[in-house]
Amino acid sequence: MSKGTTGFSKTIKFTSETYPEIKRDSKFAELTLDHVKFFKELLGSDSAIIDGVSRDATEDIEPFNGDWMRKYKGHTKLILKPASTEEVSQALKYCNDNMLAVVPQGGNSGLVGGSVPVFDEIVINMSRMNKIRSFDDVSGTLVVDAGVILEVADNYLAEKGYIFPLDLGAKGSCHIGGNVATNAGGLRLLRYGSLHGNVLGIEAVLPDGTIVDDLSRLRKNNTGYDLKQLFIGGEGTIGIITGISIICPQRSKAINVAYFGLESYEKVQEAFKEAKGQLSEILSAFELMDQQSQDLVGKVTNNKRPLDNEYPFYCLIETSGSNAEHDNEKLEKYLEHVMEKEVVLDGVLAQDETQVKALWGWREGIPECLGYWGGVYKYDVSIPINELYALVEDTKTKIKKSGLMGDTDEHPVVEVVGYGHMGDSNLHLNVAVRRYDKRVEKVLEPFVYEWIAKRSGSISAEHGLGLAKKNYIGYSRSHTMIRLMKQIKELYDPNGIMNPYKYI
Amino acid sequence: MSKGTTGFSKTIKFTSETYPEIKRDSKFAELTLDHVKFFKELLGSDSAIIDGVSRDATEDIEPFNGDWMRKYKGHTKLILKPASTEEVSQALKYCNDNMLAVVPQGGNSGLVGGSVPVFDEIVINMSRMNKIRSFDDVSGTLVVDAGVILEVADNYLAEKGYIFPLDLGAKGSCHIGGNVATNAGGLRLLRYGSLHGNVLGIEAVLPDGTIVDDLSRLRKNNTGYDLKQLFIGGEGTIGIITGISIICPQRSKAINVAYFGLESYEKVQEAFKEAKGQLSEILSAFELMDQQSQDLVGKVTNNKRPLDNEYPFYCLIETSGSNAEHDNEKLEKYLEHVMEKEVVLDGVLAQDETQVKALWGWREGIPECLGYWGGVYKYDVSIPINELYALVEDTKTKIKKSGLMGDTDEHPVVEVVGYGHMGDSNLHLNVAVRRYDKRVEKVLEPFVYEWIAKRSGSISAEHGLGLAKKNYIGYSRSHTMIRLMKQIKELYDPNGIMNPYKYI
Repeated sequence: MSKGTTGFSKTIKFTSETYPEIKRDSKFAELTLDHVKFFKELLGSDSAIIDGVSRDATEDIEPFNGDWMRKYKGHTKLILKPASTEEVSQALKYCNDNMLAVVPQGGNSGLVGGSVPVFDEIVINMSRMNKIRSFDDVSGTLVVDAGVILEVADNYLAEKGYIFPLDLGAKGSCHIGGNVATNAGGLRLLRYGSLHGNVLGIEAVLPDGTIVDDLSRLRKNNTGYDLKQLFIGGEGTIGIITGISIICPQRSKAINVAYFGLESYEKVQEAFKEAKGQLSEILSAFELMDQQSQDLVGKVTNNKRPLDNEYPFYCLIETSGSNAEHDNEKLEKYLEHVMEKEVVLDGVLAQDETQVKALWGWREGIPECLGYWGGVYKYDVSIPINELYALVEDTKTKIKKSGLMGDTDEHPVVEVVGYGHMGDSNLHLNVAVRRYDKRVEKVLEPFVYEWIAKRSGSISAEHGLGLAKKNYIGYSRSHTMIRLMKQIKELYDPNGIMNPYKYI
Repeated sequence: MSKGTTGFSKTIKFTSETYPEIKRDSKFAELTLDHVKFFKELLGSDSAIIDGVSRDATEDIEPFNGDWMRKYKGHTKLILKPASTEEVSQALKYCNDNMLAVVPQGGNSGLVGGSVPVFDEIVINMSRMNKIRSFDDVSGTLVVDAGVILEVADNYLAEKGYIFPLDLGAKGSCHIGGNVATNAGGLRLLRYGSLHGNVLGIEAVLPDGTIVDDLSRLRKNNTGYDLKQLFIGGEGTIGIITGISIICPQRSKAINVAYFGLESYEKVQEAFKEAKGQLSEILSAFELMDQQSQDLVGKVTNNKRPLDNEYPFYCLIETSGSNAEHDNEKLEKYLEHVMEKEVVLDGVLAQDETQVKALWGWREGIPECLGYWGGVYKYDVSIPINELYALVEDTKTKIKKSGLMGDTDEHPVVEVVGYGHMGDSNLHLNVAVRRYDKRVEKVLEPFVYEWIAKRSGSISAEHGLGLAKKNYIGYSRSHTMIRLMKQIKELYDPNGIMNPYKYI
């Protein structure tokens, strides 16, 4: 479970207080002035280090100790900002030799507490490694430092007619290194596929200082185990990614958006299947929103609803292609077809850029509107597509039975809402509440996790494990898989200094 | 270097004779009647085992001991054909406990000797595990046994309007398990991406019998290290893949093909870039053929050339989309554009299915026609796209200088030819010869490998390492990478029983 961001507490609790059961591992050394001296000499520049050991630097360090949701807060006293792979290598080797725990940090935009320290782990922040190393505008291969901000790379590519094959809300701050380390999914996955397919090469540093020089710019290279894949989604627990090579597709010239209403989840599946068939190569998003989610957005924003009547389900389709006329024709034909077959009951097509944005608002506005009443219990899950929405229905039934949901103040729960990336079988189950309440949590957990486990779903589709989901991995992975994962961790990080207390 | 298939020797030499420097590792046990008894009891059925230990079964075993190119031949005396993952697990555990070496075998269509034994390794052939386990026709997720033949799966999907995201010449015999184990690339990679992105889950068995139950059907699942990736391209050296889950795209309704002539490799790159921009989402193949390759095909087949004049380079473009009219319009507009800008000098568009096949014949016919004079030295390499063709030019210059190339019989070399999957930066450098000649080999090697290494290319783009390329990995991978790969091998297969003498 992840709790939403709105209200409730002004001061941020230390993670060590929120999770009193997590104890600092005594095998790790405490930072000394000698350690700091080494790092100062290694990194040289004043801007490369924030030293809270020899002086009080609480204020300077604060942004690195906590996350943007204000849910996690660590006790670190040292921030290192290496400027090269060689510096990362020497810093890590020293930490490993001296049993100093480390947290790799990118743009710090994660949702599961993976990029902030719990205790006094040294933060290795990658923001100074921010160069675009090369771009081949025939093959579309981009090579960047890990600290390059996603939006910076995408803007750079836009000028050349290319697009970064990943897009997400935090693009203005997140680092590409962090995206890769967390295997970020985002909005373009349906069209461009996952980072496991798009990342061509990785340069990374292991705890012992070994530089993994696997920064291939080749689309095909069948010479041995594809080790870079372990770093994709490894959440900084076996090494620090310092460079990435990635294949980028051409940027689409035309974007079209349609929004429509349907009478059941069965019809949503039909509409999706038809969309894949008819829109095929131009389909770039297929988003699902239930009635409750749209009612909430309507209530909070007071915007005019896109359709005249109300429907149990809504979908948003986006197409991206190289020819606006062709795409329009395909989308219109598709809508005609699904309306004639009564798969879709009503629909509207955006006529211009403003309408595109307005329609997307009914999807993208959901998370914010959900927080309107106070808080949100959030689950980011993946379930085989035929049962995707049943989780929302079953959760709602259970909460209704508990008597905790209602229109009046004494009921903590306002509504149970489902929406998400239908195209990727990725559901956001959100429970909007007037206040966080232990009774609600008890109804939700372990119910939700058990429900997902029964269907071989994933308890974390795209957010990762971090600290928040560490204890729940057993709902999505077998004992065997967890054992094999721990073997990998042990292989690369035998001292356990990399991002401790998290992941598996 | 891989040698072509035509002529030269009627009897197949044992691999142990071709490579006398490879010695049987004495740590492996010799097969006994007790071992055979165990496997007979385990697998039950008569059709599950070919026993060459207690009787002479040379003839029955022959197809499993050798490869289709007739280049490799082993000495195995035992073929196991398990019917379930549980049987694979018990068989492997027994082999591991008794130090019996093993070769996993799929359709045995590989090009580098990876799927045939060298000495008396037991062959575990997967052909009896040939069930399609499930298909979700909303998400497009297919789950199959490893032994399902690629074409069988693709035909099954065709009926449902889907396509397998991989296509290659051997599709009538290759197993999907083998495709995944060798990370096959093939014809659709430009459009649908690599198996690292498309494979959603893998079920595999480790040498100690552990069943890796990572057969997720989910598109997104960020819960721990993506271990399945190690098996993709692992060439059966850390375990045997028994099941695969893969995401399949919708089948395109329209296929269009164009063939054109260009004056230089610079223009080829321009044409490719323009194709990516204008054809973007419908581009499914961009193949390069040089003048020499087309001259050879013309000479051998006597077919009428598609274009009236001759050009230094030719390209074949294929589009696949959901609307034939739209695709035609895009392709025509593209051709107009590139001809007007003089990027392309002449071009032709296939008007029907027959012409589509005829044009593809000028690309697909190259390998066969190359063998016309006797033999072929073949290299399947990947090079950054701007230097892709320079390898052919430099090799030709070197061979010409050596005096080994000419029109008369005393010259072993007929021609140096370049063609390949331009869209994937994947070049096939082929040297057509009248006979294999040590002097030619000395000119070619290590020259070709050194040339590729200097440009950070790959000495095996899609064929893998197997036995053929085992000793050349150092040209494409650093000492560090090889050391890290050996660590993985040691972790999963400490006894070294899996596919020995090959890979890294």
